[in-house]
Amino acid sequence: MGSFKGHALPGSFFLIGGLWWTGKYSFWCATRRNKCLGSTRLASRASQRRLEVIESSLMLFFSVVGMLAEQFAAGGPRLRLYDTSENQWKDLMNWQHATMYLFFSLAGAISLIVHATEAAPLALDRLALALAFFIEGFLFVYHLHGRNMLDVHVHQMLLYGVFGQALVVFLEVFHRGNITLELLRSALCLLQGSWFWQIGYVLYPPRGGEWDLTDHNNIMFVTMCFCWHLAANMLIVGTLYCAISSAVRSRLKRTPPVEMGLLKHRDGELESDDEAV
Amino acid sequence: MGSFKGHALPGSFFLIGGLWWTGKYSFWCATRRNKCLGSTRLASRASQRRLEVIESSLMLFFSVVGMLAEQFAAGGPRLRLYDTSENQWKDLMNWQHATMYLFFSLAGAISLIVHATEAAPLALDRLALALAFFIEGFLFVYHLHGRNMLDVHVHQMLLYGVFGQALVVFLEVFHRGNITLELLRSALCLLQGSWFWQIGYVLYPPRGGEWDLTDHNNIMFVTMCFCWHLAANMLIVGTLYCAISSAVRSRLKRTPPVEMGLLKHRDGELESDDEAV
Amino acid sequence: MGSFKGHALPGSFFLIGGLWWTGKYSFWCATRRNKCLGSTRLASRASQRRLEVIESSLMLFFSVVGMLAEQFAAGGPRLRLYDTSENQWKDLMNWQHATMYLFFSLAGAISLIVHATEAAPLALDRLALALAFFIEGFLFVYHLHGRNMLDVHVHQMLLYGVFGQALVVFLEVFHRGNITLELLRSALCLLQGSWFWQIGYVLYPPRGGEWDLTDHNNIMFVTMCFCWHLAANMLIVGTLYCAISSAVRSRLKRTPPVEMGLLKHRDGELESDDEAV
Amino acid sequence: MGSFKGHALPGSFFLIGGLWWTGKYSFWCATRRNKCLGSTRLASRASQRRLEVIESSLMLFFSVVGMLAEQFAAGGPRLRLYDTSENQWKDLMNWQHATMYLFFSLAGAISLIVHATEAAPLALDRLALALAFFIEGFLFVYHLHGRNMLDVHVHQMLLYGVFGQALVVFLEVFHRGNITLELLRSALCLLQGSWFWQIGYVLYPPRGGEWDLTDHNNIMFVTMCFCWHLAANMLIVGTLYCAISSAVRSRLKRTPPVEMGLLKHRDGELESDDEAV
Repeated sequence: MGSFKGHALPGSFFLIGGLWWTGKYSFWCATRRNKCLGSTRLASRASQRRLEVIESSLMLFFSVVGMLAEQFAAGGPRLRLYDTSENQWKDLMNWQHATMYLFFSLAGAISLIVHATEAAPLALDRLALALAFFIEGFLFVYHLHGRNMLDVHVHQMLLYGVFGQALVVFLEVFHRGNITLELLRSALCLLQGSWFWQIGYVLYPPRGGEWDLTDHNNIMFVTMCFCWHLAANMLIVGTLYCAISSAVRSRLKRTPPVEMGLLKHRDGELESDDEAV
Repeated sequence: MGSFKGHALPGSFFLIGGLWWTGKYSFWCATRRNKCLGSTRLASRASQRRLEVIESSLMLFFSVVGMLAEQFAAGGPRLRLYDTSENQWKDLMNWQHATMYLFFSLAGAISLIVHATEAAPLALDRLALALAFFIEGFLFVYHLHGRNMLDVHVHQMLLYGVFGQALVVFLEVFHRGNITLELLRSALCLLQGSWFWQIGYVLYPPRGGEWDLTDHNNIMFVTMCFCWHLAANMLIVGTLYCAISSAVRSRLKRTPPVEMGLLKHRDGELESDDEAV
Repeated sequence: MGSFKGHALPGSFFLIGGLWWTGKYSFWCATRRNKCLGSTRLASRASQRRLEVIESSLMLFFSVVGMLAEQFAAGGPRLRLYDTSENQWKDLMNWQHATMYLFFSLAGAISLIVHATEAAPLALDRLALALAFFIEGFLFVYHLHGRNMLDVHVHQMLLYGVFGQALVVFLEVFHRGNITLELLRSALCLLQGSWFWQIGYVLYPPRGGEWDLTDHNNIMFVTMCFCWHLAANMLIVGTLYCAISSAVRSRLKRTPPVEMGLLKHRDGELESDDEAV
Repeated sequence: MGSFKGHALPGSFFLIGGLWWTGKYSFWCATRRNKCLGSTRLASRASQRRLEVIESSLMLFFSVVGMLAEQFAAGGPRLRLYDTSENQWKDLMNWQHATMYLFFSLAGAISLIVHATEAAPLALDRLALALAFFIEGFLFVYHLHGRNMLDVHVHQMLLYGVFGQALVVFLEVFHRGNITLELLRSALCLLQGSWFWQIGYVLYPPRGGEWDLTDHNNIMFVTMCFCWHLAANMLIVGTLYCAISSAVRSRLKRTPPVEMGLLKHRDGELESDDEAV
């Protein structure tokens, strides 16, 4: 990944994922809070499930693409792990990134099985996702050997985000459907995305003008900058949440429900999905 | 902040905040425990909400004032971040303190939205407050580079209080309305306040007579002194709690309720606020 | 405390406390599990409460005695904190031990108020106890500066027990009346007691024959020995639990209850005490 | 244990244990989810209990055998702890391994008592198991002094698995019967088993060809390899779970239940075992 693009690409994925989660959970929370207005017209249980299946498939697809790109793109190891001619491991960095993608693809696959077939208990999708984030952080910890002080520091900041997210998703195993945790997860995902971009700008400034990687003032600035990213992402999540909530409510009020009898029944189903842990 | 006043000021804010929380939660707990005496006359749901709105507004107001003071007071950076003439960051300390205030103002704003509009889920105010304390501690961790042993140590003691408080508030996301956690939070807030004063006295003794910043005995004394602060603050919280409880009970017993039918109804509302997480 | 007796004394207190807790909680658990046999004859709610009051009073009494002993026994600081003639702190060790006793006396006092007056919420007694254990460990952490390797190591082992116990008691704030946690707490308290004795034997062997404080094999042995203490204390707790359970059951079966109507009522009260958190 | 066999043996035990747990919990979960099809024919409460008793007995038996083997096999200490002729501890490594087995035998014994006699509260078996894993990790931490970098690293990876498992089992004290945690525990147990084999291959390659124990690339590879083990074990657990689920469902559908009245009753019993914590 040692390039600007190598950081911007995963950053963009996390940014899109964070925005998607913010939207999804805000919308579901708004429909849950407005049941009296017949909100299940907007999000029936079947449509929720379809959404989850699509999300899982996309996650699986892009993770597999990421794995293949790390292996077969120019300079990749092409599935060879050990270079017997030089007696050393081949492209360990690429293998490590491929391993990270592997766990996200596992999380996608498990989530797909959980939501498409009902064979597995619901909470497994969160557990797999928590493990994926944990392994991402775990590999980053041993990724930083022998680098410059500032290089290590920007990645350490990233680790706070990654492990924080792993913890939040793990808590969701026990507190599924808790909107507070879901919004926090979205904000941390956005934070990860925007911080990947920031790392790119700090380590490989696209417009030239290198940073002094050993100046302690830079470390203090970077720490503070990480907090600003968090604040900005919290603002984005908050704004989106409020916008979606009021949009849902105004639309529901404009078109009053007619078929109340049918909706009541769907409501029950809707809830059972959230609480069955 | 490198001055006595720079530590006494935030200390005073935390002391006032801690006393306020002790009073508020003791009062609400006393009214909850004495429902049979018709205590909702003293704290109806509407009055509780008004109180929360006022508290959030004050928090928001003082945090914004703090941010402005850090930026525009004598020697502040006046919103300039990088000094191009000297090629270095400008007044990073002030920027860091402003960042801390920023998260408290965010917490105030979110709490204001939660309690004034009902648009957002209740638990968000605790989450935002937990994040504010966490970020305060997080910035302090990277604040201590290259200082003297005792200087680092007194700030480490502070960190125990700050991170402990962040943890307690985060637990309140899941256990809202748990009086044990609320009193612990109040005591830790008082601890933070009184410890800021203590730091001022140790590092910038107002009556002269410098401390030896490298003597290990001083470190042992300071550790112990931190425990005494905690004990004293627990005593203060305990005394206030008992005083308020007995005051509420004696006042309720003097004036028996008449309109029982109405009160029953309000009771239900009162509880729903505490338990809806 | 730098002597064999100085470690044996607190060790004995913790041993007695651990045995007491094992007995108390085993007995209560046995009465709860045998309600159908009318076990409330053996442990009514009033008698439980009386027991708690006595326990708290004893805890308060001995902690105050401990504080006074640390201050006024031969070589104590007699409440003077700073020796102005030598410009240094006076007997910091004694002051630290007195501080530890202070928090246990606070825990005793709070527990006394909780159980004697009903003014305070039940969970506060556990919170105060958790804080007492936490502060004990906290002070020990900064107690070990500049000692020998083995000396530091035996105290580190102690810290595992102390912080483990603080954590378990803190969990009891949320899971009050969980017999698993209560037995774990008893075992850890016994562990602390027996380990204090072991520390005495290692650092101040009463029969002479000093240990080599820098030999790494000794450290490995001591680590293992700590595990044996834990195993032995788990066996003691287990044996006591089984003995008390079967004693209660056999006694209840010998004397069948007659006044069933009355007992039913008391049962309800009994439970409410355990679950009201 | 300093040999290939010494790592392969415990590894095999953990592998068998992990597979067993995966099968057991998958089967029970499948019967729970298919109650409407009369699944209690396959797993009545009595048969569940019998299974637990057998499992505990085997665990106790093999742990005791392990202890005896460590003591009396060739080169063992034969219960002598201190070699007075050489003034040093005798075979501390063997004693440490025997201590680990001791705690697993304790866990087995407690589990046996819990499931065979009903005298003890259910959650105790999980607590004892959590302690066994914790002590295993605890002794490993102090097991690694003065070894090579790679040797320390492969054992550190093991520690993640061991402490992770201790944490998961401790969580089960509070969330008994949570299939997500049970499957995670099974996967971590398999991970431990396969990683023991991997350690054997890395440190004592059976086909010769030593690894360079100080090369940093090897450390990076080993970290990644640990993640692959986890992924592979998650796949194994997942496949087994799906296979068992569909086998249970297809068999239940082939033979429809006849004696519905009786089964209803057994159902109630079945559940009470899982939820009584």
